Amino acid sequence: MIDFETGVMLPADGKIERRLSQMKGVFADEKAYLACLEKEDSLVYEVYTSTPPEREGDLIYCTSVIYPGKVGDEFYMTKGHYHAKRGTSEVYLCVGGRGMLVLENPHGDSTVLDMYPGSMSYIPPFWAHRTVNTGSGPFIFIGVYPADAGHDYGTIEACGMMKLVLQRGGQTVVLDSQRASPKAGEGLS
Amino acid sequence: MIDFETGVMLPADGKIERRLSQMKGVFADEKAYLACLEKEDSLVYEVYTSTPPEREGDLIYCTSVIYPGKVGDEFYMTKGHYHAKRGTSEVYLCVGGRGMLVLENPHGDSTVLDMYPGSMSYIPPFWAHRTVNTGSGPFIFIGVYPADAGHDYGTIEACGMMKLVLQRGGQTVVLDSQRASPKAGEGLS
Repeated sequence: MIDFETGVMLPADGKIERRLSQMKGVFADEKAYLACLEKEDSLVYEVYTSTPPEREGDLIYCTSVIYPGKVGDEFYMTKGHYHAKRGTSEVYLCVGGRGMLVLENPHGDSTVLDMYPGSMSYIPPFWAHRTVNTGSGPFIFIGVYPADAGHDYGTIEACGMMKLVLQRGGQTVVLDSQRASPKAGEGLS
Repeated sequence: MIDFETGVMLPADGKIERRLSQMKGVFADEKAYLACLEKEDSLVYEVYTSTPPEREGDLIYCTSVIYPGKVGDEFYMTKGHYHAKRGTSEVYLCVGGRGMLVLENPHGDSTVLDMYPGSMSYIPPFWAHRTVNTGSGPFIFIGVYPADAGHDYGTIEACGMMKLVLQRGGQTVVLDSQRASPKAGEGLS
Protein backbone atom coordinates (compact mmCIF):
# COMPACT_ATOMS: atom_id res chain seq x y z
CA MET A 1 0.00 0.00 0.00
CA ILE A 2 1.38 3.35 -1.03
CA ASP A 3 0.04 6.58 0.40
CA PHE A 4 0.05 8.96 -2.56
CA GLU A 5 0.07 11.97 -0.21
CA THR A 6 3.18 11.06 1.76
CA GLY A 7 4.87 8.38 -0.34
CA VAL A 8 4.90 6.02 2.65
CA MET A 9 4.81 2.39 1.50
CA LEU A 10 3.59 -0.29 3.89
CA PRO A 11 4.59 -2.98 4.22
CA ALA A 12 8.07 -2.12 2.95
CA ASP A 13 10.85 -4.64 3.30
CA GLY A 14 13.51 -1.97 3.27
CA LYS A 15 13.89 1.75 3.70
CA ILE A 16 16.85 3.96 3.01
CA GLU A 17 17.31 7.54 4.14
CA ARG A 18 19.75 9.94 2.52
CA ARG A 19 20.81 12.91 4.59
CA LEU A 20 23.03 15.77 3.47
CA SER A 21 26.00 14.23 5.25
CA GLN A 22 25.72 11.17 3.00
CA MET A 23 25.84 13.28 -0.17
CA LYS A 24 29.28 14.83 -0.06
CA GLY A 25 30.44 15.81 -3.54
CA VAL A 26 27.01 15.39 -5.09
CA PHE A 27 26.00 19.05 -5.21
CA ALA A 28 27.97 21.42 -7.43
CA ASP A 29 28.49 24.17 -4.85
CA GLU A 30 30.74 22.61 -2.19
CA LYS A 31 30.82 25.76 -0.07
CA ALA A 32 27.01 25.98 0.03
CA TYR A 33 26.90 22.26 0.83
CA LEU A 34 29.15 22.66 3.86
CA ALA A 35 27.15 25.67 5.05
CA CYS A 36 23.87 23.71 4.78
CA LEU A 37 25.38 20.73 6.57
CA GLU A 38 26.69 22.89 9.41
CA LYS A 39 23.19 24.25 9.91
CA GLU A 40 21.40 20.87 9.86
CA ASP A 41 21.98 17.38 8.53
CA SER A 42 18.67 17.50 6.66
CA LEU A 43 16.85 14.54 5.20
CA VAL A 44 17.08 14.87 1.42
CA TYR A 45 15.23 11.74 0.33
CA GLU A 46 13.82 8.40 1.41
CA VAL A 47 13.23 5.21 -0.54
CA TYR A 48 10.86 2.44 0.54
CA THR A 49 11.48 -0.86 -1.25
CA SER A 50 10.06 -4.30 -1.70
CA THR A 51 12.75 -6.93 -1.65
CA PRO A 52 11.96 -10.04 -3.64
CA PRO A 53 14.86 -12.43 -4.15
CA GLU A 54 17.48 -10.78 -6.35
CA ARG A 55 16.89 -13.29 -9.09
CA GLU A 56 16.71 -12.69 -12.78
CA GLY A 57 13.00 -12.51 -13.59
CA ASP A 58 11.89 -10.84 -10.36
CA LEU A 59 11.01 -7.15 -10.18
CA ILE A 60 11.51 -4.71 -7.32
CA TYR A 61 9.14 -1.82 -6.70
CA CYS A 62 9.94 1.16 -4.56
CA THR A 63 8.63 4.56 -3.61
CA SER A 64 10.97 7.54 -3.47
CA VAL A 65 10.21 10.74 -1.60
CA ILE A 66 12.51 13.68 -2.30
CA TYR A 67 11.95 16.56 0.08
CA PRO A 68 11.91 20.18 -1.09
CA GLY A 69 15.11 22.10 -0.54
CA LYS A 70 18.22 23.48 -2.18
CA VAL A 71 21.98 23.45 -1.70
CA GLY A 72 22.94 26.89 -2.97
CA ASP A 73 20.73 27.21 -6.05
CA GLU A 74 20.72 23.48 -6.80
CA PHE A 75 17.57 21.55 -5.96
CA TYR A 76 17.55 18.54 -3.65
CA MET A 77 18.00 15.39 -5.71
CA THR A 78 19.07 11.77 -5.59
CA LYS A 79 22.70 10.73 -5.87
CA GLY A 80 22.14 9.35 -9.36
CA HIS A 81 23.26 5.95 -10.53
CA TYR A 82 23.66 3.44 -13.27
CA HIS A 83 22.34 -0.05 -12.81
CA ALA A 84 25.25 -2.37 -12.05
CA LYS A 85 23.79 -4.72 -14.67
CA ARG A 86 23.83 -2.06 -17.37
CA GLY A 87 21.34 -3.62 -19.77
CA THR A 88 18.38 -3.21 -17.40
CA SER A 89 15.73 -0.51 -17.47
CA GLU A 90 13.30 1.15 -15.05
CA VAL A 91 9.83 2.70 -15.11
CA TYR A 92 8.82 5.70 -12.96
CA LEU A 93 5.31 6.82 -12.15
CA CYS A 94 4.99 10.16 -10.37
CA VAL A 95 2.18 10.36 -7.84
CA GLY A 96 2.90 13.66 -6.09
CA GLY A 97 4.83 16.91 -6.41
CA ARG A 98 6.92 18.17 -9.30
CA GLY A 99 10.32 17.11 -10.44
CA MET A 100 12.73 16.30 -13.20
CA LEU A 101 14.43 13.14 -14.35
CA VAL A 102 18.03 13.65 -15.47
CA LEU A 103 19.27 10.97 -17.86
CA GLU A 104 22.63 10.41 -19.49
CA ASN A 105 24.56 7.61 -21.11
CA PRO A 106 28.26 6.84 -21.48
CA HIS A 107 28.24 8.13 -25.08
CA GLY A 108 27.68 11.67 -23.77
CA ASP A 109 23.95 11.88 -24.55
CA SER A 110 21.94 13.66 -21.88
CA THR A 111 18.33 14.70 -21.45
CA VAL A 112 16.00 16.04 -18.78
CA LEU A 113 12.32 15.06 -18.52
CA ASP A 114 9.52 16.64 -16.51
CA MET A 115 7.75 14.54 -13.88
CA TYR A 116 4.34 15.40 -12.43
CA PRO A 117 1.42 13.42 -10.96
CA GLY A 118 0.39 10.83 -13.54
CA SER A 119 3.58 11.10 -15.60
CA MET A 120 5.23 7.84 -16.60
CA SER A 121 8.93 7.93 -17.44
CA TYR A 122 11.01 5.25 -19.07
CA ILE A 123 14.69 4.81 -18.31
CA PRO A 124 16.05 2.60 -21.10
CA PRO A 125 18.85 0.12 -20.53
CA PHE A 126 22.33 1.71 -20.27
CA TRP A 127 21.17 5.15 -19.03
CA ALA A 128 22.17 6.70 -15.70
CA HIS A 129 19.31 8.42 -13.86
CA ARG A 130 18.80 11.02 -11.16
CA THR A 131 15.59 12.65 -9.93
CA VAL A 132 15.30 16.26 -8.76
CA ASN A 133 12.57 17.92 -6.68
CA THR A 134 11.79 21.22 -8.43
CA GLY A 135 8.60 21.85 -6.44
CA SER A 136 7.65 23.24 -3.06
CA GLY A 137 6.38 19.99 -1.48
CA PRO A 138 7.52 16.38 -1.37
CA PHE A 139 8.18 14.89 -4.81
CA ILE A 140 6.92 11.29 -4.81
CA PHE A 141 7.30 8.60 -7.42
CA ILE A 142 7.17 4.85 -7.77
CA GLY A 143 9.86 2.90 -9.57
CA VAL A 144 9.89 -0.63 -10.93
CA TYR A 145 13.10 -2.35 -12.02
CA PRO A 146 14.59 -5.84 -12.29
CA ALA A 147 15.61 -7.34 -8.96
CA ASP A 148 19.05 -8.26 -10.28
CA ALA A 149 19.78 -4.78 -11.71
CA GLY A 150 21.90 -3.61 -8.78
CA HIS A 151 23.23 -0.08 -8.27
CA ASP A 152 26.44 1.55 -9.42
CA TYR A 153 26.72 4.90 -7.65
CA GLY A 154 30.47 5.20 -8.13
CA THR A 155 30.48 6.18 -11.78
CA ILE A 156 28.28 9.23 -11.17
CA GLU A 157 30.04 10.06 -7.89
CA ALA A 158 33.33 10.17 -9.78
CA CYS A 159 32.42 12.98 -12.15
CA GLY A 160 28.82 14.03 -11.55
CA MET A 161 26.13 14.23 -14.20
CA MET A 162 26.21 16.43 -17.28
CA LYS A 163 23.12 18.48 -16.44
CA LEU A 164 22.44 20.59 -13.33
CA VAL A 165 18.93 21.59 -12.31
CA LEU A 166 18.96 24.94 -10.54
CA GLN A 167 16.67 27.69 -9.37
CA ARG A 168 17.69 31.07 -10.74
CA GLY A 169 15.54 34.18 -10.36
CA GLY A 170 12.61 32.04 -9.25
CA GLN A 171 12.82 29.89 -12.39
CA THR A 172 13.90 26.27 -12.82
CA VAL A 173 16.82 26.17 -15.21
CA VAL A 174 18.82 23.28 -16.63
CA LEU A 175 22.51 24.01 -17.25
CA ASP A 176 25.43 22.02 -18.53
CA SER A 177 27.64 20.96 -15.70
CA GLN A 178 31.16 22.32 -15.48
CA ARG A 179 32.26 18.83 -14.61
CA ALA A 180 33.92 16.63 -17.14
CA SER A 181 31.59 14.87 -19.54
CA PRO A 182 32.52 11.26 -20.24
CA LYS A 183 32.30 12.21 -23.94
CA ALA A 184 35.21 14.60 -23.46
CA GLY A 185 37.33 11.70 -22.31
CA GLU A 186 38.16 13.43 -19.07
CA GLY A 187 35.78 11.60 -16.80
CA LEU A 188 35.36 7.87 -16.66
CA SER A 189 38.38 5.72 -16.74
CA MET B 1 0.75 10.70 -18.74
CA ILE B 2 -1.88 8.63 -17.02
CA ASP B 3 -5.18 10.13 -15.95
CA PHE B 4 -5.89 8.46 -12.61
CA GLU B 5 -9.61 9.22 -12.96
CA THR B 6 -10.16 7.52 -16.31
CA GLY B 7 -7.09 5.36 -16.80
CA VAL B 8 -6.42 7.01 -20.16
CA MET B 9 -2.69 6.93 -20.95
CA LEU B 10 -1.30 9.45 -23.45
CA PRO B 11 0.76 9.00 -25.43
CA ALA B 12 0.13 5.28 -25.69
CA ASP B 13 1.79 3.28 -28.42
CA GLY B 14 -0.90 0.65 -28.37
CA LYS B 15 -4.41 0.09 -27.11
CA ILE B 16 -6.44 -3.08 -26.93
CA GLU B 17 -10.16 -3.34 -26.30
CA ARG B 18 -11.83 -6.51 -25.10
CA ARG B 19 -15.53 -6.78 -25.72
CA LEU B 20 -17.82 -9.58 -24.56
CA SER B 21 -17.72 -11.16 -28.01
CA GLN B 22 -13.95 -11.65 -27.64
CA MET B 23 -14.35 -13.48 -24.33
CA LYS B 24 -16.25 -16.61 -25.27
CA GLY B 25 -15.65 -19.38 -22.76
CA VAL B 26 -14.08 -17.05 -20.18
CA PHE B 27 -17.08 -16.64 -17.88
CA ALA B 28 -18.39 -19.66 -16.02
CA ASP B 29 -22.07 -19.20 -16.89
CA GLU B 30 -22.25 -19.73 -20.66
CA LYS B 31 -26.01 -19.15 -20.81
CA ALA B 32 -25.72 -15.81 -19.02
CA TYR B 33 -22.81 -14.91 -21.32
CA LEU B 34 -24.89 -15.49 -24.45
CA ALA B 35 -27.81 -13.52 -22.99
CA CYS B 36 -25.49 -10.56 -22.19
CA LEU B 37 -23.94 -10.71 -25.64
CA GLU B 38 -27.32 -10.74 -27.35
CA LYS B 39 -28.26 -7.59 -25.46
CA GLU B 40 -25.05 -5.70 -26.21
CA ASP B 41 -21.45 -6.46 -27.11
CA SER B 42 -20.22 -4.45 -24.13
CA LEU B 43 -16.70 -3.21 -23.58
CA VAL B 44 -15.26 -5.24 -20.69
CA TYR B 45 -11.75 -3.78 -20.49
CA GLU B 46 -9.16 -1.67 -22.23
CA VAL B 47 -5.37 -1.71 -22.01
CA TYR B 48 -3.12 1.19 -23.02
CA THR B 49 0.50 0.16 -23.52
CA SER B 50 3.91 1.58 -24.15
CA THR B 51 5.82 -0.47 -26.69
CA PRO B 52 9.57 -0.37 -26.28
CA PRO B 53 11.50 -2.88 -28.36
CA GLU B 54 10.73 -6.40 -27.16
CA ARG B 55 14.28 -6.89 -26.02
CA GLU B 56 15.51 -8.52 -22.87
CA GLY B 57 16.21 -5.69 -20.47
CA ASP B 58 13.42 -3.37 -21.60
CA LEU B 59 10.24 -2.94 -19.57
CA ILE B 60 6.69 -2.30 -20.80
CA TYR B 61 4.21 -0.25 -18.81
CA CYS B 62 0.50 -0.28 -19.37
CA THR B 63 -2.74 0.94 -17.87
CA SER B 64 -5.74 -1.37 -17.66
CA VAL B 65 -9.30 -0.18 -17.19
CA ILE B 66 -11.86 -2.86 -16.35
CA TYR B 67 -15.40 -1.57 -16.50
CA PRO B 68 -18.01 -2.48 -13.90
CA GLY B 69 -20.39 -5.24 -14.89
CA LYS B 70 -21.29 -8.90 -14.46
CA VAL B 71 -22.01 -11.96 -16.56
CA GLY B 72 -24.57 -13.77 -14.46
CA ASP B 73 -23.09 -13.33 -10.97
CA GLU B 74 -19.47 -13.25 -12.15
CA PHE B 75 -17.74 -9.89 -12.23
CA TYR B 76 -16.17 -8.45 -15.38
CA MET B 77 -12.52 -9.46 -15.52
CA THR B 78 -9.58 -9.94 -17.83
CA LYS B 79 -9.04 -13.14 -19.78
CA GLY B 80 -6.13 -14.11 -17.56
CA HIS B 81 -2.77 -15.28 -18.82
CA TYR B 82 0.65 -16.64 -18.14
CA HIS B 83 3.67 -14.88 -19.53
CA ALA B 84 4.94 -16.80 -22.54
CA LYS B 85 8.41 -16.49 -20.99
CA ARG B 86 7.34 -18.12 -17.74
CA GLY B 87 10.16 -16.89 -15.51
CA THR B 88 9.10 -13.23 -15.72
CA SER B 89 7.15 -11.24 -13.17
CA GLU B 90 4.91 -8.16 -13.08
CA VAL B 91 4.05 -5.32 -10.69
CA TYR B 92 0.58 -3.77 -10.42
CA LEU B 93 -0.29 -0.43 -8.86
CA CYS B 94 -3.98 0.31 -8.47
CA VAL B 95 -4.94 3.95 -8.98
CA GLY B 96 -8.75 3.76 -9.07
CA GLY B 97 -11.71 1.56 -8.19
CA ARG B 98 -11.76 -1.77 -6.40
CA GLY B 99 -10.76 -5.16 -7.61
CA MET B 100 -9.11 -8.47 -7.05
CA LEU B 101 -6.05 -10.15 -8.46
CA VAL B 102 -6.47 -13.88 -9.05
CA LEU B 103 -3.18 -15.80 -9.09
CA GLU B 104 -2.41 -19.44 -9.69
CA ASN B 105 0.53 -21.58 -10.70
CA PRO B 106 0.86 -24.92 -12.49
CA HIS B 107 1.41 -26.72 -9.18
CA GLY B 108 -2.21 -26.03 -8.22
CA ASP B 109 -1.52 -23.16 -5.81
CA SER B 110 -4.04 -20.34 -6.04
CA THR B 111 -4.66 -17.07 -4.21
CA VAL B 112 -6.75 -13.93 -4.50
CA LEU B 113 -5.50 -10.47 -3.45
CA ASP B 114 -7.42 -7.25 -2.91
CA MET B 115 -6.57 -4.25 -5.06
CA TYR B 116 -7.52 -0.66 -4.15
CA PRO B 117 -6.06 2.79 -4.83
CA GLY B 118 -2.45 2.76 -3.65
CA SER B 119 -2.18 -1.02 -3.46
CA MET B 120 0.90 -2.59 -5.01
CA SER B 121 0.70 -6.22 -6.05
CA TYR B 122 3.52 -8.51 -7.05
CA ILE B 123 3.04 -11.32 -9.55
CA PRO B 124 6.07 -13.58 -9.13
CA PRO B 125 7.60 -15.50 -12.03
CA PHE B 126 5.60 -18.58 -13.09
CA TRP B 127 2.18 -17.37 -11.85
CA ALA B 128 -0.87 -16.84 -14.08
CA HIS B 129 -2.83 -13.69 -13.33
CA ARG B 130 -6.27 -12.23 -13.89
CA THR B 131 -7.84 -9.03 -12.54
CA VAL B 132 -11.49 -8.63 -11.59
CA ASN B 133 -13.54 -5.45 -11.09
CA THR B 134 -15.50 -5.95 -7.87
CA GLY B 135 -16.54 -2.30 -7.57
CA SER B 136 -19.19 -0.02 -9.01
CA GLY B 137 -16.90 2.19 -11.13
CA PRO B 138 -13.96 1.64 -13.45
CA PHE B 139 -11.14 -0.39 -11.88
CA ILE B 140 -7.83 1.13 -13.00
CA PHE B 141 -4.31 -0.15 -12.48
CA ILE B 142 -0.86 0.22 -13.94
CA GLY B 143 1.29 -2.78 -14.77
CA VAL B 144 5.02 -3.03 -15.43
CA TYR B 145 6.59 -6.16 -16.91
CA PRO B 146 9.56 -7.21 -19.04
CA ALA B 147 9.18 -6.36 -22.71
CA ASP B 148 10.12 -9.88 -23.76
CA ALA B 149 7.64 -11.60 -21.38
CA GLY B 150 4.97 -12.20 -24.03
CA HIS B 151 1.46 -13.52 -23.35
CA ASP B 152 0.12 -17.05 -23.21
CA TYR B 153 -3.67 -16.85 -23.08
CA GLY B 154 -4.23 -20.37 -24.31
CA THR B 155 -3.39 -22.23 -21.11
CA ILE B 156 -6.03 -20.35 -19.12
CA GLU B 157 -8.53 -20.45 -21.99
CA ALA B 158 -8.20 -24.22 -22.05
CA CYS B 159 -9.42 -24.87 -18.50
CA GLY B 160 -10.13 -21.54 -16.80
CA MET B 161 -8.70 -20.45 -13.48
CA MET B 162 -9.19 -22.21 -10.16
CA LYS B 163 -10.95 -19.33 -8.40
CA LEU B 164 -14.14 -17.52 -9.41
CA VAL B 165 -15.02 -14.06 -8.09
CA LEU B 166 -18.78 -13.64 -7.86
CA GLN B 167 -21.39 -11.38 -6.36
CA ARG B 168 -23.85 -13.30 -4.21
CA GLY B 169 -26.45 -11.58 -2.02
CA GLY B 170 -24.68 -8.25 -2.51
CA GLN B 171 -21.37 -9.68 -1.28
CA THR B 172 -18.17 -10.43 -3.16
CA VAL B 173 -17.37 -14.10 -2.77
CA VAL B 174 -14.48 -16.20 -4.00
CA LEU B 175 -15.32 -19.79 -4.89
CA ASP B 176 -13.39 -22.73 -6.21
CA SER B 177 -14.09 -23.21 -9.87
CA GLN B 178 -15.85 -26.37 -11.02
CA ARG B 179 -13.32 -26.55 -13.79
CA ALA B 180 -10.43 -28.94 -13.67
CA SER B 181 -7.46 -27.85 -11.63
CA PRO B 182 -4.11 -28.59 -13.22
CA LYS B 183 -3.17 -30.18 -9.88
CA ALA B 184 -5.83 -32.81 -10.45
CA GLY B 185 -4.11 -33.82 -13.64
CA GLU B 186 -7.26 -33.23 -15.65
CA GLY B 187 -6.38 -29.85 -17.09
CA LEU B 188 -3.16 -28.96 -18.77
CA SER B 189 -1.60 -31.41 -21.09
